[in-house]
Amino acid sequence: MERSALYEQLGIRLDMAVEAHEILRQERNADVPGVRIIDGKHEHATVTTVIVESAEGEQAMGKPRGTYITIDAPEIRVNNREIHQKIAAVVASELSRLARLGPQDNVLVVGLGNWHATPDALGPKVVDMTLVTRHLHKYAPEELQGGLRSVSAFAPGVLGLTGIETAEMIKGVVDRTQPSLVIAIDALATRSVERIATSIQLADTGIHPGSGVGNKRSGINRESMGVPVIAMGIPTVVHAGVIAHEAIAALLQEFQTSPTLYKLYKGINPDALQSIIQGVLGPEGQELIMTPKEIDQLIQNTSRIVAAGIGQALHPGIDTSGWTQYLQ
Amino acid sequence: MERSALYEQLGIRLDMAVEAHEILRQERNADVPGVRIIDGKHEHATVTTVIVESAEGEQAMGKPRGTYITIDAPEIRVNNREIHQKIAAVVASELSRLARLGPQDNVLVVGLGNWHATPDALGPKVVDMTLVTRHLHKYAPEELQGGLRSVSAFAPGVLGLTGIETAEMIKGVVDRTQPSLVIAIDALATRSVERIATSIQLADTGIHPGSGVGNKRSGINRESMGVPVIAMGIPTVVHAGVIAHEAIAALLQEFQTSPTLYKLYKGINPDALQSIIQGVLGPEGQELIMTPKEIDQLIQNTSRIVAAGIGQALHPGIDTSGWTQYLQ
Amino acid sequence: MERSALYEQLGIRLDMAVEAHEILRQERNADVPGVRIIDGKHEHATVTTVIVESAEGEQAMGKPRGTYITIDAPEIRVNNREIHQKIAAVVASELSRLARLGPQDNVLVVGLGNWHATPDALGPKVVDMTLVTRHLHKYAPEELQGGLRSVSAFAPGVLGLTGIETAEMIKGVVDRTQPSLVIAIDALATRSVERIATSIQLADTGIHPGSGVGNKRSGINRESMGVPVIAMGIPTVVHAGVIAHEAIAALLQEFQTSPTLYKLYKGINPDALQSIIQGVLGPEGQELIMTPKEIDQLIQNTSRIVAAGIGQALHPGIDTSGWTQYLQ
Amino acid sequence: MERSALYEQLGIRLDMAVEAHEILRQERNADVPGVRIIDGKHEHATVTTVIVESAEGEQAMGKPRGTYITIDAPEIRVNNREIHQKIAAVVASELSRLARLGPQDNVLVVGLGNWHATPDALGPKVVDMTLVTRHLHKYAPEELQGGLRSVSAFAPGVLGLTGIETAEMIKGVVDRTQPSLVIAIDALATRSVERIATSIQLADTGIHPGSGVGNKRSGINRESMGVPVIAMGIPTVVHAGVIAHEAIAALLQEFQTSPTLYKLYKGINPDALQSIIQGVLGPEGQELIMTPKEIDQLIQNTSRIVAAGIGQALHPGIDTSGWTQYLQ
Repeated sequence: MERSALYEQLGIRLDMAVEAHEILRQERNADVPGVRIIDGKHEHATVTTVIVESAEGEQAMGKPRGTYITIDAPEIRVNNREIHQKIAAVVASELSRLARLGPQDNVLVVGLGNWHATPDALGPKVVDMTLVTRHLHKYAPEELQGGLRSVSAFAPGVLGLTGIETAEMIKGVVDRTQPSLVIAIDALATRSVERIATSIQLADTGIHPGSGVGNKRSGINRESMGVPVIAMGIPTVVHAGVIAHEAIAALLQEFQTSPTLYKLYKGINPDALQSIIQGVLGPEGQELIMTPKEIDQLIQNTSRIVAAGIGQALHPGIDTSGWTQYLQ
Repeated sequence: MERSALYEQLGIRLDMAVEAHEILRQERNADVPGVRIIDGKHEHATVTTVIVESAEGEQAMGKPRGTYITIDAPEIRVNNREIHQKIAAVVASELSRLARLGPQDNVLVVGLGNWHATPDALGPKVVDMTLVTRHLHKYAPEELQGGLRSVSAFAPGVLGLTGIETAEMIKGVVDRTQPSLVIAIDALATRSVERIATSIQLADTGIHPGSGVGNKRSGINRESMGVPVIAMGIPTVVHAGVIAHEAIAALLQEFQTSPTLYKLYKGINPDALQSIIQGVLGPEGQELIMTPKEIDQLIQNTSRIVAAGIGQALHPGIDTSGWTQYLQ
Repeated sequence: MERSALYEQLGIRLDMAVEAHEILRQERNADVPGVRIIDGKHEHATVTTVIVESAEGEQAMGKPRGTYITIDAPEIRVNNREIHQKIAAVVASELSRLARLGPQDNVLVVGLGNWHATPDALGPKVVDMTLVTRHLHKYAPEELQGGLRSVSAFAPGVLGLTGIETAEMIKGVVDRTQPSLVIAIDALATRSVERIATSIQLADTGIHPGSGVGNKRSGINRESMGVPVIAMGIPTVVHAGVIAHEAIAALLQEFQTSPTLYKLYKGINPDALQSIIQGVLGPEGQELIMTPKEIDQLIQNTSRIVAAGIGQALHPGIDTSGWTQYLQ
Repeated sequence: MERSALYEQLGIRLDMAVEAHEILRQERNADVPGVRIIDGKHEHATVTTVIVESAEGEQAMGKPRGTYITIDAPEIRVNNREIHQKIAAVVASELSRLARLGPQDNVLVVGLGNWHATPDALGPKVVDMTLVTRHLHKYAPEELQGGLRSVSAFAPGVLGLTGIETAEMIKGVVDRTQPSLVIAIDALATRSVERIATSIQLADTGIHPGSGVGNKRSGINRESMGVPVIAMGIPTVVHAGVIAHEAIAALLQEFQTSPTLYKLYKGINPDALQSIIQGVLGPEGQELIMTPKEIDQLIQNTSRIVAAGIGQALHPGIDTSGWTQYLQ
């Protein structure tokens, strides 16, 4: 029984390309055609780049062609500003690589998600910590020394609280303010508890419908916005269904020593499994999420690092070492 | 020495039409031509309507032609839900009168101001408490029984935190979502301590540049938005300069018994007065505001009443008595 | 393999007596000696009273002798003030029954938990909404008409943020203020997703070490405080380990049709199961909690209902129907 | 007419010793007997020490014998972490000088004030940012390397929300936890707009009844607590009455050139002046406060600096340069 098929039946999306690839590789026990992987290593972070190169890769991964960079930095959990600053530098460098901005390009940072739901509030928090300068460019051009690019930022809220599709609202602002690039920050779901608030995914494909903690109905990408969109996603939750399924899979793994049980394991009906898991989670199961107890503090740390990384990538004229001075 | 002239020199705007009119009447000791006043009385509120009817009225008032309704309800300070509900009903009735909506008209509620500054957070708070339905209309038309109009709502943030002019951002959203009417909620400055968080001004002129607690640079009105805009303003601060000036005026008033002193009072140089007040307030005086200590609680009460009033005006199919059920 | 034994090995406490009893009954397939159950039914709530009557009951349940009342009210999830008010009335009546206060008895309400962690913030939120009157009794006795009892309230914070054991801090305040009764509000863990924020447990035993969302190191009960303590606990989380285990149990249940598999099910080694679950949850598994996405809103609703229930029980002189007027 | 007398009539307390002394010196145009002043200068702060040495000084100042240190650091308004760190070092050094702690002395930090009223929330905010260690000392003595003193911290709330006198609650906790020193953080009123959120007063006299933004009814000092108490006060508001009076005084000052008017100025009846000011402020005038618009951000900055200063003074074993790593 394939995990990817079951997840689909349970309505669990794999927001992170690196996880979708991991599962495919395991299930196939072979490389995934049309997908290329590049591994990198920094002092406080590992960087995995997943490149979806062909229609075959798109089909297998369930994700559009493009580059998906995952920065894993478990030390985000540690309250150490110096390490955080080094992780922010990695974020900045990967973002610069993906964004390829010209010196005159102006950028709109969009923080997706719901202020009032802790694990979904990461996007608005990053917006809050972003150094915006567009109004200075407009009203006081002479003060703009030192490499400050024109940057604007806003948090569009969520459909349930505004009545307006997030993509619609962003498109309205993009049309009026004409940025060269949109950076969209979002909270993601992961299948790995360890990744919560310690991984950052950058994708030059933007955001596609249905992803994220609070499901978006329509995409935020070059097609819908008319300008390039880089998505920065940070996993903040694990769907409860994932944990339920992992537990069952781990149990069945134990049974593999017995040939009878192994047959059972292989033959198990995905529908039966789905109904077991749904029974465990109850009628509200789709909405059940798992977070560590200290999620509020973790999101504070991660938002600060992401905002610092964005700041360094967008305003290269500011001395890197001084970034903590600008952050809350 | 005229108060209106001094306020102008001190950079103090009179956001409330009813106060601008009051001062003019006192200074002239006569009716203001081109301005009509209608007084009303409810159980828990008085309603004063100021109608600016001609170019002469516009000139004198420093406000565009239109209708400005002020609801004064000191009992907002009292924690009594029943009274609050009656005040909300007055808000609803005045808003309906001004808005003249057809049954199919859809409405966008915009909460101006800064989430992170207590006296300027009223607009975003009202948005938070607004019952939005536009997405239901769009995705589930059959559920829409009971007179729920299509309503959307958002808080655009402030220029210093977004880099985007508030008017620009709203115009972008208006262009995409095509509302029939915009209701813009804003925190105002008043010259009367008693009005803080207990008065509500409705104006069919929208919002004009430079008004409000966090000065807007461009207007939010029919000209800029292309659709009618009703401004709902709630005073939350008194400029420190107003208190300083009121103290001086009160002292001079005392002196009027002596003819010598009265001459002094009448002859006093506005520039001298301005420099006295600026000396008292210091270099940051323009940014100094006065609020009651319990401002956080007051703004909570007032936001709830304003949101209830808007809800009743926009969704007449919902039973009035049930409104508290929808409010936080 | 017994669930209760496994939970112990996984470090999962059963905070709710009604759940501990349920599991025991299932495992034994018989009544639990020394434990008596009384069922009740209200319009919007069911009430289950678990009375631990003997040492044998204490031993089996892992809970001290006393009365544990669980109010299950799924409609707390529905945003309807009228229903909430009726649920609050049930809370008030059960609390009165347990508290048996004399007219002169004064009460200290203590809100346990951490302001800064959403699912643990319920206690402090209830304190915030509690009508306190002790200072009025002390300073203005003549105003005290209408049945207002002397009530005080505070939130002691959590050990990690104060450096002071919660019990120590409460004891200090109890010694100074000499209440006749302490009511301690706490967030609990449940094994049932449906109970999150919709059940309320009242216990005349107070709080025992190690229970709650943020584990307390020492008890808050008559022994430690010197006065009676009623614990009011509201489940806000499910431990991730519970979900993992439920999934495995559900799978094994399916296997029961085959005699071979049933043997397997019965014979499975608790240590093996524990290590499977720990493998799934990772090293931070103990700290992993599950909440519904809308937990922030649920906790707001539940706090309001609990505060209203406490208010009605303590201040019987206030007209019940008017309670919503006092709540935020 | 003397300012000090008028303030008393208006119910305006001079929380800052340095301001009380300033006014006395001006009114007397001579040194104040029994009061000694020492001036100091740092790169980013000036330090003024007022020592009340005798009963005569106590009488004149309206403050008990003791040392009152005021650190004025206008650059707290500037968002620059490096400068903030230097100001924190000055706070640390002055606090150490006043506290004279032995290496084994343990300290309780108390944050006075109301979480829910921005200008009064400074104390609780500092507590939130304080590095507490008492529980580590108690439960894990071997980890305690590097000069971490035993420190605990809590925020007792305010009388209106707890029903318990702040002093009573602190005394309860002091009795249980037996600290060698209490440091009580409080928001103060100032008469100088420039001092808001940029000055810090340290006093070895503790806190006396009636001072602070939310008036305390009883003192928090060595007499009431049984251990030494250092008060750290940060001005966050100016009473509206001060501005009103300053405006009048500035006007009258202008009149001094005319002998007639000067006579008037000297002869003016304090009662008349009081009633003028009360007329301007309205019935709620006592509760009217003035703050700069950006008070939320200022209080965030100042809390961080005060918490860092306390941390460095109490935990000298931690490298000063590393303090930003611990702060939020």
